[in-house]
Formats: sequence, structure tokens, C-alpha cells
Amino acid sequence: MMNQIAYLDNAATTQLDPKVLESMIPYMGEYYGNPSSIYSLGRQSRLAIESARKQVAEMLGVKATSIYFTSGGTESNNTAILSSINELGCTHIITSPIEHHAVLHTIEHYCKQKQLSCSLVKLNTMGEVDLLDLENQLIAYTKQGHKCLVSLMHANNEIGVLLEIEAVGIIARNHGAIFHSDCVQTIGHYPINLIDYGVHFASASGHKFHGPKGTGILYVSDGTKFGALIHGGSQERKKRAGTENVHGIIGFTQALALAMDNFSPDHSHIKSLNKRMRFGLEKLSKDISFNSTEMSLYTVLSVNFPAGTNTDLMLALMDNKGICASGGSACSSGEDEGSHVITALKKNLPGATIRFSFSKMTSEKDIDFTLESISSMLSPQFVS
Amino acid sequence: MMNQIAYLDNAATTQLDPKVLESMIPYMGEYYGNPSSIYSLGRQSRLAIESARKQVAEMLGVKATSIYFTSGGTESNNTAILSSINELGCTHIITSPIEHHAVLHTIEHYCKQKQLSCSLVKLNTMGEVDLLDLENQLIAYTKQGHKCLVSLMHANNEIGVLLEIEAVGIIARNHGAIFHSDCVQTIGHYPINLIDYGVHFASASGHKFHGPKGTGILYVSDGTKFGALIHGGSQERKKRAGTENVHGIIGFTQALALAMDNFSPDHSHIKSLNKRMRFGLEKLSKDISFNSTEMSLYTVLSVNFPAGTNTDLMLALMDNKGICASGGSACSSGEDEGSHVITALKKNLPGATIRFSFSKMTSEKDIDFTLESISSMLSPQFVS
Repeated sequence: MMNQIAYLDNAATTQLDPKVLESMIPYMGEYYGNPSSIYSLGRQSRLAIESARKQVAEMLGVKATSIYFTSGGTESNNTAILSSINELGCTHIITSPIEHHAVLHTIEHYCKQKQLSCSLVKLNTMGEVDLLDLENQLIAYTKQGHKCLVSLMHANNEIGVLLEIEAVGIIARNHGAIFHSDCVQTIGHYPINLIDYGVHFASASGHKFHGPKGTGILYVSDGTKFGALIHGGSQERKKRAGTENVHGIIGFTQALALAMDNFSPDHSHIKSLNKRMRFGLEKLSKDISFNSTEMSLYTVLSVNFPAGTNTDLMLALMDNKGICASGGSACSSGEDEGSHVITALKKNLPGATIRFSFSKMTSEKDIDFTLESISSMLSPQFVS
Repeated sequence: MMNQIAYLDNAATTQLDPKVLESMIPYMGEYYGNPSSIYSLGRQSRLAIESARKQVAEMLGVKATSIYFTSGGTESNNTAILSSINELGCTHIITSPIEHHAVLHTIEHYCKQKQLSCSLVKLNTMGEVDLLDLENQLIAYTKQGHKCLVSLMHANNEIGVLLEIEAVGIIARNHGAIFHSDCVQTIGHYPINLIDYGVHFASASGHKFHGPKGTGILYVSDGTKFGALIHGGSQERKKRAGTENVHGIIGFTQALALAMDNFSPDHSHIKSLNKRMRFGLEKLSKDISFNSTEMSLYTVLSVNFPAGTNTDLMLALMDNKGICASGGSACSSGEDEGSHVITALKKNLPGATIRFSFSKMTSEKDIDFTLESISSMLSPQFVS
């Protein structure tokens, strides 16, 4: 039964690549030493972690000492934001209303707790950041004596809109601001050089690119002070305490290596599936529109279905046929509030909004089956 | 080569039980859904987590709603301490000098950052808490208008001294204090009822009882307010954001279930190995003494070797023979300061101090081989 599903929710999580699992197995077996232990079995684990760190760093164009392993993208985002406040003295935060909750809720928490100010950058209807507004805000808040943190995601997880990240990096630097970017949807999906991006902090999550859940990294640019969110032992150069998740670190690294090695064919494959889906939907009804352009993150297609359709009902009907897709991000599913991204962009049209997201493991058959199923849902009997 | 080692450092970490790995594999394969996703594949993950939570709770004698899954014991300890300050209003912290760094460094951090006061409870030379001193401190600080947090570990990871945890629970309650206990060395090693202990918070770590690294729980007693350390999505009832480490949670639960199911034979086996080691060492030299009694945590034996021996040298020689043991806790190994526990108890004798720790996977052969090897190290030519 499990292989009959059409899994089109790869922005929520991806299936572990069997080659990644294979790389993890030895560290869930004979290589079980605590990396902090000084005997041979411990040193093997330490060596595996440090060699993973070097490999990850090289793939992202940075120094090994800039990479910290964490329990996931959310922890990385939390650490970056807290450090910007506590260690770097940021007193004003500029973010956007379509950030992931791992950023938005964290900023809300600390702004309230520490009585910091926060402002939202203007977005156009596609969710693109208004760079002029960003610069004007930076000028205004800096003039008021604030040190600013700019926290803007590289690619939006719901609609796929991409940030002009290098431009933001330059603007932030020009105004002495700290720049954090949640790169959870892009690291592992594009060849990336974090130095070029000009970010002080960047976050990634292993399970978004066929790595294990419970793994992530925080990138901290050379010379940027930062402090621990989790205190205790000396792990991760005293910046992230707790016995290292060795098999998770190995899996994260192997997943990133596979993603980078096969970027070109995987990218072509996924892009063609995304187009196939878009064209198929366009053929189904002229009333279907998209929240993603062909310039957006290639793994995501956010679709508005015509008036009379209902997101929850369509998702339930798709689920019934074994099609996995989502209304907003998985992390918000428990909240019963609808998507904060769609609301922020005033895209709350009368119909359904559904995100389809693809991976190297998605097939044309998945797309065609989904299109066929949607076709029957859009028949006049169905749409009220 | 790997199977020729004598692994006697099970308090640092344990080997993953093959049955635990087996339980994790499906969640690293076909059951990859994000637990927050509403379709069938997501609901399967959700169901697995909630059934794991219920199982863990039952094994610890508490409600499922009291159990929160985390990335490990360190994160759990951090969350408990931060919550006691931020959510429960504790302004004075009473702890001991022999707590794990995951507790001591966290308390140091927040006491400094938030200008809270902190005091250390008196210990006897065995590391046992002076309950009268604890009570007197609680009376004094409460009279000064403080709300107190008592953070005392259930079993010390280096010397194995056990806390009279139920007595501490009663004293804390009697004085309106919050009681947190780092139970990383006892949960998974004893049948435990956390209600009886009277703790508000307790922490456990999966890799200490043959579960996976990167997994842990925080127990929060019914009705105790607490807040997130990691903010973001709605996971763990909004108390611990981030996509759940599903395979880790399943592995943690399976490891705890195996530990509880086989407690009696495993306990006897480990206890007899501990005795065999102790008696063997006693026979080797009358100058060998112990920091653990037969009443201590049965998995640990902390040994003082005679003047003229050197901890680092002995550990290196043992490592050379494939024997894994440690000087202090693994988490402090990077610090080059020696053991803060041994220092606090003024047990810095002229010789070496080494911790041996055992598990169900340790054999008599491991012990005998280690005794033999130590014997050669204690020969007159060796001891200076």
C-alpha cells in the first residue's frame, strides 16, 4: 500500500535516501563511541563528525569552523536569533510576515520578553521583499540608535518565492546590520556559497533533502560572535551542548553530498515535474492560478483552485486516493488558522489553496495520477 | 578489531541495541511522513509518536501529557531550568557542585544573565546530599522572599552516588520549591515512578540505555507551567518546536521498554560484574579505593589507584589494549580541567581516578581482561 501513494509534500519532509541510511548504519552499530571520549572508539566518532563538518563546510563554500551541528532547522533559527540579541546586541528586528514560524514565533517571543522592537518589511503580491523599503527601514532604525537584525528566509516554504539574498546581504552590511537567513528550503536544493550571500547566520535541516529528521546545521560567519542556546558540555566548541547525534550528523552530511553530486539531473527532473503539474492544471481550468512563478523555488507549486472548492475537502479527497499534499506548512497544521503566508499576501481567494512539492523521488506517474484525481474533483457536480 | 574491545564506559554512552535499531528502521524508510501533516502518511507518524509517548509515560508511572520528547538530556535540563526561572518565577537556585555540566553550566549562565542567586548544598565525602542543610537553605532563602529551584541529580554520572530523591521531593514541596532532577543515569536503569519522586521536572537521555543518540525526554509534572526553549511550530503541544525526530522517538521508547522488560536479569548481571571488578581490584592492591559504595548506582565503579599512578597514562595504556574507560564524564573530556566532581569532593588523591561503567552488553571476559591489564600497570616497574 505504501508504494501506491503519490507523495507531493516534499517541502514538509522527504523520504530518507537509502544511501543515507546506509551511511548511518555503522554509527548505529559498531561505531558507538561518545565523540567526547578520548579512547580510540570515541576518537573514531570525533573524527567522523569533524570530517563531516569539513565536508559540509566545503559544499557550502565556508570554513569548517563556521558549521555547528544542531537538532534541526528550528533549533538553528532559534540560536541565530537569540545570539543576535544577546551576543551581538541587536535591539530591532526586521523580518517578513511570511517567514516560517520557527523564525516568526521566536522573534515574537524574544521581542516580547526583552522588549525589543520589530518591524515587517514590505512584500509585493508575489511575496518578494521590497529592497528599498528594507533599506529605508534600516536607515531609520539605525538612525534611532538601534542595531538591527534582518531575518529573511531564502525561499518561502509555502509559495516558493526566492529572496534576492546577495542583495539583502549587501544592504545589511552597508547599514551595519546582522543578517540571518532561514535556508531550510534551499540548502540541499541549490549549489550554495554562503560567503557570497553575505549572511551572518544561515540554517538548514537534513530532512528537507532526504536526510534524517532531527538533524540540522547553523552556519555562523567567520568572526561573528555567538552564544549557546543549549548549555552544558563542551560539544560543538561549547556552542551546542549535548552528546552529538553522530549517526544523524553522518546522515545529514551524506544527504547533502548526494544532493550536491546529483544536483543537475535532480534539478532538471524536479523542474520538469513542476512544469508538468503546472501545465496539467492550467489545462484543467482557466480558473486555476498559481502563487509560484517559474522563477520560484523549483520544488514547490502553490495552487489556487476556483471558487467553490475547499482546501480541507480537497486535501481529504486527495488523501483518500493516496495523494499527499498540504494547505500550508506542516508545522502550522496543528493550528487551525489557515496559512499565515497566504493571509499575509492577501491571497485568500474564495477557493482552495494547495501546495504541491516535489523531489527526486517523485515520478511523472505521481503527477499524472494527481492531475487525473484533481480533474474529477473539479467536475461541475463537485464544485458548489 | 571492534569486537575485541572491552567497553567499560557505559555511563558515557551505550551501544544501540540491535532490537532498538530494528524498531527504528521502518521510520527511516516507508513511514517518513511529517507527523504534523494531516494525510494518512503523516497521521501514521503522529500515531507512532503519541503511542510512544503513552508507553514512555506508563513506564514512568505518569500521564502521557507529562512527557515531552527532546533532542537529549542536556536540552531537557536546559528547558527545565529556564522554565523554572521564566515561567515559575524561581529567583534562587539550590544545586550541588557535582551536578553534570548540563545543569551546572546552565544554572551559571542564567544566574549571571538574569542576576539570580545560587547556592550549593552541602555534601558528605561520598557526595551524598545533606538533607538538613538543604532544608535550612530552603527556609532561609524562602524567608528572604525567594522562590527556590532545587536541581539535584538522581545519580551522579562519575561516582554513582544516589540521591534520596523522594525525601528531597518532600522537602522541596514543604517549602514551596520547584524540584528538578537530572535522571539521565537512572531512567532506563531502574523501575521508576516519577510521581513518587515528587519532582516537577525530570530529564532522561536515550543513548544512556542502548537507545539512539540525539533523543531524550523532559517530564513535567501535571499542572506545572512551563515554556519552550525552542520556539516555532506547534509540535509537542507548542512546548518544543521542530519536526519531530520520529525514528529517534521510536528508538528511545523501544530502548526504555527493553530496559524495563529485562530490568531484573540485566540488573543482576551488571551488579555482579561491578562486584567482580571491585573484588578483583581489591585483590590487586590494598591501596586501591573506591568512590562508589555497594549502595551506589550499580552501573558505575569509580576507582582511586595508588599514588604513583597517573589517570591520563593509565587511560592511554588501557586504550592501547582496547579497554574503554574514562577519567571523568565524557562531556568534560574536552576541558582539560580534570573532573569537577572529584575536585568538589576533595578526592584528588595523588594517584589516578578512573570510572568504569557497565551495561547488559558487558561480559565477565571484559572485566577479567581489564583486571589483568591493570595488574600489569600496577607492577612496581610501572608505578613511579
